[in-house]
Amino acid sequence: MKISKNKLKFIRSLNQKKQRDQNNVFLAEGPKLVEELLQVFPCQYLAATPEWLRLNSNSKAKEVVEVSIEGLKQGSLQQNPQQVLAIFEKPTYKIKLDKIKDSLCLALDDVQSPGNLGTIIRLADWFGIEDVFCSLHTADVYNPKTVQATMGALARVRVHYTPLDDLITKLDNHPIYGAFLEGKPIYNETLSQKGLIVMGNEGQGISKEIESLITDKLYIPNYPENRKGSESLNVAVASAIICAEFRRQALCQQY
Amino acid sequence: MKISKNKLKFIRSLNQKKQRDQNNVFLAEGPKLVEELLQVFPCQYLAATPEWLRLNSNSKAKEVVEVSIEGLKQGSLQQNPQQVLAIFEKPTYKIKLDKIKDSLCLALDDVQSPGNLGTIIRLADWFGIEDVFCSLHTADVYNPKTVQATMGALARVRVHYTPLDDLITKLDNHPIYGAFLEGKPIYNETLSQKGLIVMGNEGQGISKEIESLITDKLYIPNYPENRKGSESLNVAVASAIICAEFRRQALCQQY
Repeated sequence: MKISKNKLKFIRSLNQKKQRDQNNVFLAEGPKLVEELLQVFPCQYLAATPEWLRLNSNSKAKEVVEVSIEGLKQGSLQQNPQQVLAIFEKPTYKIKLDKIKDSLCLALDDVQSPGNLGTIIRLADWFGIEDVFCSLHTADVYNPKTVQATMGALARVRVHYTPLDDLITKLDNHPIYGAFLEGKPIYNETLSQKGLIVMGNEGQGISKEIESLITDKLYIPNYPENRKGSESLNVAVASAIICAEFRRQALCQQY
Repeated sequence: MKISKNKLKFIRSLNQKKQRDQNNVFLAEGPKLVEELLQVFPCQYLAATPEWLRLNSNSKAKEVVEVSIEGLKQGSLQQNPQQVLAIFEKPTYKIKLDKIKDSLCLALDDVQSPGNLGTIIRLADWFGIEDVFCSLHTADVYNPKTVQATMGALARVRVHYTPLDDLITKLDNHPIYGAFLEGKPIYNETLSQKGLIVMGNEGQGISKEIESLITDKLYIPNYPENRKGSESLNVAVASAIICAEFRRQALCQQY
């Protein structure tokens, strides 16, 4: 009813990006998340309590180990381990430019916090954004913290790591949106449902290089207008408000 | 150029709520945050680099210690300590029912994550929400993680800890909003700029007891409508979208 010593060591090593990259795998924990990921990613290893295994006897994992909740705790990177942990193979996605040009996508220019990144993937899923492009210095989406924060959205949103300037250049004549303090109030703009929304780094915002490629600078109005004091919003919060406003405009045309 | 051993011990103890409560103080770090808090809260102790002290010679702290950046690192709870840390007295605010009934406020029903709480205080500030009510089991706003995540908004937003059912009962005949999966799409509703928006716990949502006091159940539409898979949003993200929509409606009436 235990995870083997070797496997424990391997699981803990998956906190490091280098180990995840070398082995091309990532760790996920908890029933909701693991069950959603099992539907789409090959699973190399799964450790779960007898209760979970009884309810999920069809889970296709190469190696399945029944463990007690105490045994699970030994392997877990979470504070409150729950029922199951699993090691999945990382997916590789092709960037389909035609599809990207025909949909609303997000690009993250060096977002640093694993929690913010996971929260953004989760809200992208909510708003039907199926492709998220990360600059090469953005946090790793397979960081266990990020994986957990996606709450399963990782099963439905394709996350690509690619230089954003190359991507934007290839998108040629495509609306590229970005949030700036000197941008236009977002509520006055007619927002295209086919465009790329760029969100910047927590401290620095969007880099100068990418800023020069933005075609539409947007601003989230504070309240009352020109209220003193508040200077910025958390990047996941700003992403949420912007994505919600894009989709509100689409929905309100339908009503 | 060092923080004394006793003080170091005290600073580290402020990671614990019990210690913060007993001493009625909290810790803040970094120039932007400390400078904003110095404008409104009495400061008991401040340790800073010579560079910071030169630029901020008027800072009113009971005790000021000049330290090297290495000395600062010893006391810091942050990964990357910056220039200054300070211990502030916790404020006590009276709940002014007349003012509350005349403005838009937030209530948090057992929000658990210190990071989410700080992010919510920060966005409340952005949207001109000056009072945030926390249920007694909500995370402590003076947790160092939360204080840092507010990015200074703590200097402008009054955070109260109070039983939410009592508060709502006293508000008598006031619109009480809450987000529910079975609520009405928020974009179709006329939202009052004088109301209380209740946000629930990360896992459980709004408690049954408080749900019975909600007068307007709201829903943030996902996209496309009835998209399968995504089931929820992070509580800070949902708070952001709801507050933004309230203020959008107010701003769009002005335009």
